[in-house]
Amino acid sequence: MLSSSYIKLINSLRFKKYRDRNKLFVIEGDKLVSEYLASGKPVKLLLALPSWIEKKDRALLSSAREIISVSESELIKVSQLTTPQGTLALVEMERFIPDIESLEDKLSIILDNIQDPGNLGTIIRIAAWFGIENIICSFGTVDVYNPKTIQSSMGAHLHVNTYFADLHDTFAQAAELNIPVYAATLDGEPVKNIDKTHNGFLLFGNESRGVSEELMTYVTQKISIPPFKKVQAGIDSLNVAMSAAIICSEFRR
Amino acid sequence: MLSSSYIKLINSLRFKKYRDRNKLFVIEGDKLVSEYLASGKPVKLLLALPSWIEKKDRALLSSAREIISVSESELIKVSQLTTPQGTLALVEMERFIPDIESLEDKLSIILDNIQDPGNLGTIIRIAAWFGIENIICSFGTVDVYNPKTIQSSMGAHLHVNTYFADLHDTFAQAAELNIPVYAATLDGEPVKNIDKTHNGFLLFGNESRGVSEELMTYVTQKISIPPFKKVQAGIDSLNVAMSAAIICSEFRR
Repeated sequence: MLSSSYIKLINSLRFKKYRDRNKLFVIEGDKLVSEYLASGKPVKLLLALPSWIEKKDRALLSSAREIISVSESELIKVSQLTTPQGTLALVEMERFIPDIESLEDKLSIILDNIQDPGNLGTIIRIAAWFGIENIICSFGTVDVYNPKTIQSSMGAHLHVNTYFADLHDTFAQAAELNIPVYAATLDGEPVKNIDKTHNGFLLFGNESRGVSEELMTYVTQKISIPPFKKVQAGIDSLNVAMSAAIICSEFRR
Repeated sequence: MLSSSYIKLINSLRFKKYRDRNKLFVIEGDKLVSEYLASGKPVKLLLALPSWIEKKDRALLSSAREIISVSESELIKVSQLTTPQGTLALVEMERFIPDIESLEDKLSIILDNIQDPGNLGTIIRIAAWFGIENIICSFGTVDVYNPKTIQSSMGAHLHVNTYFADLHDTFAQAAELNIPVYAATLDGEPVKNIDKTHNGFLLFGNESRGVSEELMTYVTQKISIPPFKKVQAGIDSLNVAMSAAIICSEFRR
């Protein structure tokens, strides 16, 4: 039986303010919930239909701090999906503080004010695919625990650390360590032509404004994805998640 | 003044059935509407705030068959956006019949049952960027005139022809013409290693099931985008639009 205070709490987590206040976020569906349970991440509360609980391994279930068996109608009251998927869990947020020195020999992604939660989730998924373990986001970037971000990352959250930081500090430290900074721009060198290091920061900017002017001073190499022909009127750029897919693929080529 | 019959017509176009019946679809916003007017495509009806109409060139406006000046409140009644963008237009659909012989020397995209309208729109945008003029979709693929497809393609519809066809017929004709067929799969040859022709069909399958088994017989080369490391549990594939971005980029490299 789901208490009204839990219903209120779970529904409040649609909003960043309440996610931050409670340090909790929501995941839904068999695949995602099972992966979080298996990962050892702190699952504070697990809600599921009795039929779902019966099918699951006891050891897996035991990693949730609290389990409540719920009915379909209770699940509908708290689900953020059009069609609830049998299970929902609350997970404790982890807020990492980036240690730039530990990133010195790695390839990392830096995001400057990405606004669309679907784009952010897709970029997290791309990072996981290409073995990029760390993403540092400007404070103006959309929340990584936004339900749409969680959904579009398809579980990749588990394999990629996401940090929020003042990017001026981040880049100042990177400069001291001579970490190369590559920025995706419209007028950079075609990505296929540049010397690609095994380490460095790949910087992607806001969906409509690109990388902030004041961050460009930290950039050591501007890169671009040239169109096949002179671009037709109206198509002025690729979507930022597409650019990230192509550039990460080139760096891991 | 917007008549109630127009309000009813425009709102009905949210549904494929009525788009097909009326052979019309909706576009919204200054950028998209201006591009359609400039392109010479058949704009049947243009609705706009008086302030929008005043700013526009007369020659541009004259390519709409009918113009109705509307109020904010009238626009809200028919807009499919959360915040209406000052203008909305009805455009006549074009249904192309693919002439496979004309594709012999070109690179084209073939889509087998893509279900997500955002993915389809993104793939149309990628095609436009990489100079791929033609996309042939199976009859089971989501409608290209779905409002979400139009929105995520960002005007790229204007530069890419989209066809619906029985893919068995399409591939049978391609085989007679010796057009190579590359299928994006999880177990194909890494795309960077294969010999890439300047022409051919790039085949992408459904978001969860991939390319249909029965179409695989037509495939001349299976290709894949390998992950950087052995993939972690839970991340079993890239999103189809990401794969399309990377594969098109490789073919145009």
